[in-house]
Formats: sequence, structure tokens, C-alpha cells
Amino acid sequence: MSQPYRPDPDAAAHHLLRVLDATAVWRQLPALAEHADPDLVRQVLREAATFVHEVVAPLNRVGDEVGARWHDGAVTMPPGFREAYQAFWHGGWPALSAPTALGGQGLPVALAFVLYEWLSAANHAWTMAPGLLHGAVECLRHHASDELQARYLPPLVSGEWLATMALTEPQAGSDLGLLRTRATPCADGSYRIEGTKIFISGGEHDLTDNIVHLVLARLPDAPAGAKGLTLLLAPKWLPDGQRNAIACERVEDKMGLHGSPTCVLRFDGATGWLVGQPHQGLAAMFVMMNAARLHVALQGIGLLDAAWQKAHAYALERRQMRAPQRRDPTQPADPIIEHPAVQRLLDTQRAWIDTGRVLAYHTALQLDVAHHHPNADVRRAAHTWCALATPVLKAAWTEQAFLGASDCLQVFGGHGYVREWGIEQIVRDVRVTMIYEGTNEIQAHDLLLRKTLPDRGAALRATLEGLRDDPGAPATPTWHAGVQRMLALLDRLAAASDAQRQALHPVASDFLRAVAITLMGWARARLGATDATWDAGAGAAFDRWVWPRQGWHCGLVEQALAQA
Amino acid sequence: MSQPYRPDPDAAAHHLLRVLDATAVWRQLPALAEHADPDLVRQVLREAATFVHEVVAPLNRVGDEVGARWHDGAVTMPPGFREAYQAFWHGGWPALSAPTALGGQGLPVALAFVLYEWLSAANHAWTMAPGLLHGAVECLRHHASDELQARYLPPLVSGEWLATMALTEPQAGSDLGLLRTRATPCADGSYRIEGTKIFISGGEHDLTDNIVHLVLARLPDAPAGAKGLTLLLAPKWLPDGQRNAIACERVEDKMGLHGSPTCVLRFDGATGWLVGQPHQGLAAMFVMMNAARLHVALQGIGLLDAAWQKAHAYALERRQMRAPQRRDPTQPADPIIEHPAVQRLLDTQRAWIDTGRVLAYHTALQLDVAHHHPNADVRRAAHTWCALATPVLKAAWTEQAFLGASDCLQVFGGHGYVREWGIEQIVRDVRVTMIYEGTNEIQAHDLLLRKTLPDRGAALRATLEGLRDDPGAPATPTWHAGVQRMLALLDRLAAASDAQRQALHPVASDFLRAVAITLMGWARARLGATDATWDAGAGAAFDRWVWPRQGWHCGLVEQALAQA
Repeated sequence: MSQPYRPDPDAAAHHLLRVLDATAVWRQLPALAEHADPDLVRQVLREAATFVHEVVAPLNRVGDEVGARWHDGAVTMPPGFREAYQAFWHGGWPALSAPTALGGQGLPVALAFVLYEWLSAANHAWTMAPGLLHGAVECLRHHASDELQARYLPPLVSGEWLATMALTEPQAGSDLGLLRTRATPCADGSYRIEGTKIFISGGEHDLTDNIVHLVLARLPDAPAGAKGLTLLLAPKWLPDGQRNAIACERVEDKMGLHGSPTCVLRFDGATGWLVGQPHQGLAAMFVMMNAARLHVALQGIGLLDAAWQKAHAYALERRQMRAPQRRDPTQPADPIIEHPAVQRLLDTQRAWIDTGRVLAYHTALQLDVAHHHPNADVRRAAHTWCALATPVLKAAWTEQAFLGASDCLQVFGGHGYVREWGIEQIVRDVRVTMIYEGTNEIQAHDLLLRKTLPDRGAALRATLEGLRDDPGAPATPTWHAGVQRMLALLDRLAAASDAQRQALHPVASDFLRAVAITLMGWARARLGATDATWDAGAGAAFDRWVWPRQGWHCGLVEQALAQA
Repeated sequence: MSQPYRPDPDAAAHHLLRVLDATAVWRQLPALAEHADPDLVRQVLREAATFVHEVVAPLNRVGDEVGARWHDGAVTMPPGFREAYQAFWHGGWPALSAPTALGGQGLPVALAFVLYEWLSAANHAWTMAPGLLHGAVECLRHHASDELQARYLPPLVSGEWLATMALTEPQAGSDLGLLRTRATPCADGSYRIEGTKIFISGGEHDLTDNIVHLVLARLPDAPAGAKGLTLLLAPKWLPDGQRNAIACERVEDKMGLHGSPTCVLRFDGATGWLVGQPHQGLAAMFVMMNAARLHVALQGIGLLDAAWQKAHAYALERRQMRAPQRRDPTQPADPIIEHPAVQRLLDTQRAWIDTGRVLAYHTALQLDVAHHHPNADVRRAAHTWCALATPVLKAAWTEQAFLGASDCLQVFGGHGYVREWGIEQIVRDVRVTMIYEGTNEIQAHDLLLRKTLPDRGAALRATLEGLRDDPGAPATPTWHAGVQRMLALLDRLAAASDAQRQALHPVASDFLRAVAITLMGWARARLGATDATWDAGAGAAFDRWVWPRQGWHCGLVEQALAQA
């Protein structure tokens, strides 16, 4: 009864080409101008949708039920996972948006965003494997030596090999300053790594012939805390064909995501090489981390759509009780989609999914602008958008994905709680997105305490004013009032006393939510302006059920400032 | 690392005897006056706490991991479940609050409420088995013939046998009017039952020597819809020692609650006897259903406390990063309980748990008042409280239990997502409480459309005014304003047009939440007045983070009325 996820390439084309007018953006970027062809974009989206639906989506259930299995240090992936992965990289999908100079296809980042959103919706666990490739490539491109790049970039760009991010240790989760793993320099320029890392997604598996670990460790002369961390590259198989001294000790037994092996890795004097400068590991790692956070936001958006798709189909078929309006006289009961509580719930998720897509794809466009635009001011503004949008999209859409998937489960009643329909798997799988790559509390801290207070809200102010004045997003009086309330709040934050800054800690998540809903208001206006059906359904649900929460969250921040 | 749940008998005694002054209530009830002794209450609570902690709580994990197993029509419960259940009923626990005339101990219902809340917190799956006993006893006492009562009440009062509620069918979940199971009268006064029931908790197991099914079915001359339902009693083993024709076809594979068998039961001409009048089955069943709904509310409160207990203990031990205040100079990081986001989250759950306890225990007192008070007006007011509080407690505290357990999981970071600490089990287990015994949407519909609109809000108005004027709950200006806003809303509901009543359907859950938080405000005032520490912690969290939502939910209902 559980149907594989079916991506909608027409919807993605609409969001990109119509709502965001992406071709106009790409035309300004010499490196991408040749790909500004809407027909090519539509064709790539259609092919990607077919691959996701036919190859990856059907493996979602078996991934949950069989899971990744550890035996004697080796990890066997669920049936079909390796074959699907080999088809994936041989098909060129990992290289979609990589530069042609590196062997990529040079397509806009936005297409890779759509692809990974769909893959996550179809099979979150499987998609964990290639999910870190883009970040690893970016990290190595910007920080690794030419020699390391020459050896490791080609197989990571193509996806022939996979990558991990090896940060967490038992005593060091959110607080990377507590890391203990050591790296000792050797005479040949390599390093010996000693320590134990936990929660390493894809730390061991049989999908590819090699795995490239990016490891945070301390050099012997490292200062204490987060400023003493160094990034190293340590492959599972060394260039000389020897197995590196990296042992997978265990795979965690988790709430969900059973098809993705969460590994404990022991580095027993493993060989690695420096990526970037000694003690500058956190900066290098953050190139990868930011890419990973956007990837997690896409997981949230995709999984919420997967949950909506299931609940929507069920609500069309399932008949229970009389709807207050639109009764079907030929049947003893009406489809539950006619019940107002169910309509509200489904339309609210639709509003989150579609505004999330518009904001995420816009962020993808801005990533390309930040890299390729000829004007430095435009590049800088694009970079600002990405820096602000990353924690917002990660935290707000993963939380909504969990809550909304649970709401979609509720549409099934008791049938949602049994495994048959596959909806409970989404609730279990998606829960981790609120935690990994920085908990949602860390994202809120990042937005408020690192990216808003230090510049007295200047960057966020400029961004919000830009949205407010966007001629493509016709502002309603309520949205305009909401933006003004946010701007007034930024004024108060800029003038906050020390005591007030202290009082902001417990409401950092409210601040993030208020920003998220304000951004959604802009996306909602763009969506409504291009599609009257959307405007009447999800758009109206946004106005009635989502938008008022902007004021609610603003109010909690204002209250904290007033009481301090 | 997962510690068994530990009930706190001193806290329960505080809530009952101090916050609610239960002895003053009991003294007015001749049937219970002899139990108005605080020392006896404390002793029973201490013994219950010991039993729950030592016998039932340690089986929670094995229940999840091994689960209830079906083989060839029989169900084997997880290791230790049968022994614990035998100790439970031999210890007299199921009969705690049953009338002495039926072989019970005649203690106040409130003690049974505390017991079942703790049992649910300690081991939700195990507690599903005895969870329906009280409702079945009430149903049979009020509706069954003397002969049926004589045969079935004694073993159900003692708990020697267990009971089920067999309602749902594949096509009939929330909509019982769609039921198809048939009952045909036989010459000897019995009935033959034919049909398939699904989602029958404890439909088959090896805990007891017999199982008593209460089955909703249609007689041959039944009118269509919900008015044509008849309640029958059908035991697993017939009085002559023969096995009844009831087959357990399957046990569902669920998101959680693995230790409780959710059965598909096929009635193949099974023998049953009428409970109450033909076609009056729904009224008889609702005696059982109302008891079950309060039981589910206790599950929510208990499981939220279990989640809080785990997260609180972890937050005291786990050190990550520097807290903005109260830094420990002897360590490189501070306990995460010192981080404001964690404090907010834990104190907010504490506010929900403790106000929920006060409201649930108050409801238990009112159940006894409704049965035993000499004054008919007092009995009627108590009955009104119970009718209103039942859907509110069921819906609001099960939803909060799920959301709050997820918040408690978040305190663990990645460690919460792995099974080791047992917190993810609570999230999976508790999710079903939002669905069974009437989904939370059904509860909201019950409160607004069945219990508020028909009497133009009179009963709810009288109840809220009583809380507002309670000298034991000193009202703050904000709480007073909130109650007045609710009362004004009731005025508007009383005058609502047909179009406005239609517009209320999608905001029924907001109405329920607004009522819930208003009731919490009263409980919060009572709690704060008796415990300054609580007032400064959970009380302050309630004022800052929970109470403002009362206005938010009121606002959505007001908006729906204004826009219709």
C-alpha cells in the first residue's frame, strides 16, 4: 500500500523558471549563461525525476526493514543500494553542478538542489551516502593542496568514491572544542591519526571502492578549544593499495534511517594529510558544514513533501463521516479530504513545502551568483543571503518536516501508526534532521548571536528590505506590517544591553522562526502571483494558519527584551 | 544507560493532599469518608511506587525489543510480562478503587489515576493490558444483566481476566456508523457474531486465562448508521470451557508500543450476550470509552514525565560549551542544564506535567463526587467537569506528550536518536495516544460541537467562572484577562450564525487548546500557591512560554468567526 515517492518535474520547473525567473539570474553569470535554456532545464528535471522514482524510491522500505548491517568491521548495505548507487554515479548525477574543469557538467547548483531534495524524499537513508559529496568537493577545492586535489577530487566529483565528515566524539558533540583525536606529523609529510569518532554517517559501507574521511583532530602543539583543530584527509584505502588503519567498531541502532550506517570509527594511527593550515580546521570544515546544512534543509523539504504525498492520496480515497459541506449522496461517508481539519493540515504542509522550495532554490541561485557574478557587490549580497538563509532553512524546515510528517500520519488515523503505509517511517527518519549538522538550537544561536547581533542586524535588515521592495512579490498590508515589526525588532536588538543579550538566549529559536516566516511571506507572495490555484489553497492556508505565528514568535523575543 | 522510570510518591501526595485538598473532598462523600486519611493515602502511594519501579518499569525495554509475537493464532507476550501481570492482580492493584461490594478496596478513584499514570510512564505497552479493566467494569455495572455481571464482574474487578474494546473495522475507524459486524439472536438468548475487527489492543495474549471482548455489532433489524449498533460480550473461553470462535489473525507491526499486541480478530459465529438494549450499543460503549479517554490522558502525562526524567538526568551530567551564566571554572564545559534553551525546554515540560496531574487528579475527585455526593446539584456540576475535561485532557496532553518527548530527545542531541538511552522509544510509543480512543480531532469536535455549541457554552462558562473565583487559586491580571477573553468568545459562539458554525470546524483544535491552557492557568495558580520552588521554575516557564499560547489559539477562533 506504500507507494514510492514520485517527484514532480513540472512543479520544480515552475518554481525555478516562473516563480524565481532563474534564467534571468543565470544569464548574468558568464559561467552558466549557456545553461540558461529552459528546455534543457526541463529535460534534466524530467530525467532526474524518472531516475529518482524508478531506481531510488523503490528501495526506501527495504532500507528501513533490512537496514545497514555490521559484521566483523564490514558494513553490508540493504539489498539494491549498491546497484542503485553505481547507476547513480555512472549516470553522472553527482557531477551535475560541478565545474566542467573538474569533470562536472557545469549546470546550475539549483538543479542539484532539486535532485537532492527529491532523492531525500524518495529514500532518505540511501541519499545520506552521496549527500556529503558536494561539501567535500567544495572543502577540498578551497583548502587542499594541489597534490591532494589531483588525487581525490576526480573520484569525489564523479561520485566514484564517497566522503564522510568525521567530527563528533563521545564527549564532543555540539562542542567541537572538546575534541581529543590527535594527529602527529610524520617525516614524509603525512600525519598519524589516533582517536575515536562517533556518529559518522557512511563511515563504512559497500557502495563504493573507497571512502574519503575528512577528520578533525589536534596537532601536538595545538592550543586548547576550538581554535586548536586541524582538518585531515584519511582514505579507507591508501594510494599504495594498503588498507588504512581505520576500523568500524559498531553501527548504531537508531530510531530510523536504518539504511544509513551511523558508524563508530577508530583511527589507530591512521595515515592522513593536512587539508588547509594547521589549527585552521574549523574554517575548512565549515565550507563542508554549510553545504551539509543546506542539504539537510532539502531533506526536510523533501521528506515533508513525501509525507504530504502519502497523506493527500489517502485522504482522497478514505471515506469517514459526513463532511460539513460537499456531501456525496451516493456514498454513506465522504472522503476525509473534505473535512476541514484535514484540509487545513494538508494545505498547511503544502504552504511549508512550496515556500521552502522557493527559498531553497533561491539560495541555490544565490550560491551561483556568489561564485560567478561579475559585480563584487552583487556577489557580497548573495553571500549574505546564503549565510542568513542556511541556519533558517535548516532549522525551520527540519522542525516543520517532523511536525508536519506527524500531522500527515494523523490523517491516516490508526493506519498511520502501523508500518504498512510507510508514513511512520518518514516520522522516524526525519527526526534526525533536527539534530545532525548542528542541532536546531545551534542554528538559532548561529543566526541570532553570530550573524545578527555582531553587525547590529545590518545584513538581515538589508535582506528583509530587499524582499519587502521586490516588485515580483506583491506585498499585502499584513505582510508589510510583519516585515516592519521585524525591522523594529532589529532596531531594539541593535541597542540591546548586556542583560538583554543574555535574555535572548532562550528565545533564539523564536527569532529564527520569526525570520523564517517572514521569508516565507515573500515566497508566498511570489508563488501566489504566478498560480491562482496555489494562492487559493496553500496560499490561503499560509495566511490563516502560518503567518500569524510570525507575530507570536516576534512577541516572545520582544517580551524577553522587555523583561530583561 | 536507560534507567527504569521512578515514580515520586511525595509529589503525588503533594498534588492530591495539598494542592487539591483531596481529603476535604472525600470527607463529603460518605462512601469514601473512611479513606480520607492522609497517612493511608501516602502509604498506598509509596507501595504503588515501589511496585511500578521494581516490577513493571524494568520490562519496558524488553517489551520494545522483543515485542508481542504472533504464531499460529496465539500471542506470546515479551519475557516477564505475564509474571509481572500475575503479581499485579494478585497484589490487588486492579481492584484499588473498585467498590467493596464488588470485591474492590473502595479507595478513591484518584489513587487509581496516579497508579495508572505511573504504570504508563514506566511501561506503556504492558499497561495497555489492564488499562481497559476499569472501563469494562463500569460498562458492565451499568448496562449488563445481573447474570452477566455475576459471571464476569468478579474476575474483571480483580483483574484475573482482562478485557478488550472491539470497535474498529477496516472501513470504520472514527466513523462507527460504518460498522458491518453482525450479531444474530439464537434460541437460548445468546447471539452469533460474524465479522472482522482490527486494532484490538490485547485481543489475544498469554497474560491471563481468559479475555472478555466487548464487541459492537449490528442486529439483523438494525437501522443504518451509528444508531443501529448493539454491544455484546464475547469471552475467549465460554462458560462451558469451550474456546469461542474468535481467531487472532495477525498482530500489527507498529511504529512503537511493540509490547502490546494490536490484533486483527475474526469472529466466526462467536457466541456473545447482549450488554444493554439492542441498538443502544453506542451509549453503553461510551461508558467504557470515556474511562478509556481519561486513561489515555494519564498515559500522556506519565510518558511526558518519563521523557522529562530521562532528559533532566542527562542534562545534569552532560557537559558541552560554556553556559552564558553560572560557569564552572573547574571544567572545560558546563552542564547543558545551565544552557537557557535547555532550561526552557525542561521547565516547559514540567509545567505541562504538573498542571496536567492537578487537572487529571481533580477530574478523578470529581468522578467520585459525581457518583457519591449527597447533593444532586454538586453531582451534576462534577459530571459537567468530567464531560468537559475528558476531551481536553485526552487531546492536549497526548499532543504535548509527543511534542515534549521529542523536545526531551533533542536534549540528548545525537545520543537521543540512538536507542541506547530509551528516549526515542517514548517518542515512538506515545505517538499512538494522539490517535486511539478517538483521534485528537474527534476530541476537539466533541468539545466544541457536542459539548459547547449545543448549550451555547453554558456549562463551560459556569466551569470557567468557578475556576476564576476559586479562592485557592490566586488570579494574576494576565490569567484573569485570559479567562475573560474565553468568556467573551463563548458569548460570540452562543450568537454564531450557521456560516460561522461551519467556519469553526478547522479551528476546533484551537478552541480545545485555548480551553486547555485556561484550565492549566488555574492549576498553575494552585501549584504556585503551595510551592515557591515550583513557582519560580515551572511556574515561570508556564507564564513565559505556555500561557501566551492561550491568546494565540483564542485569536485563531476569533479570526474564523470574524471571516465567516
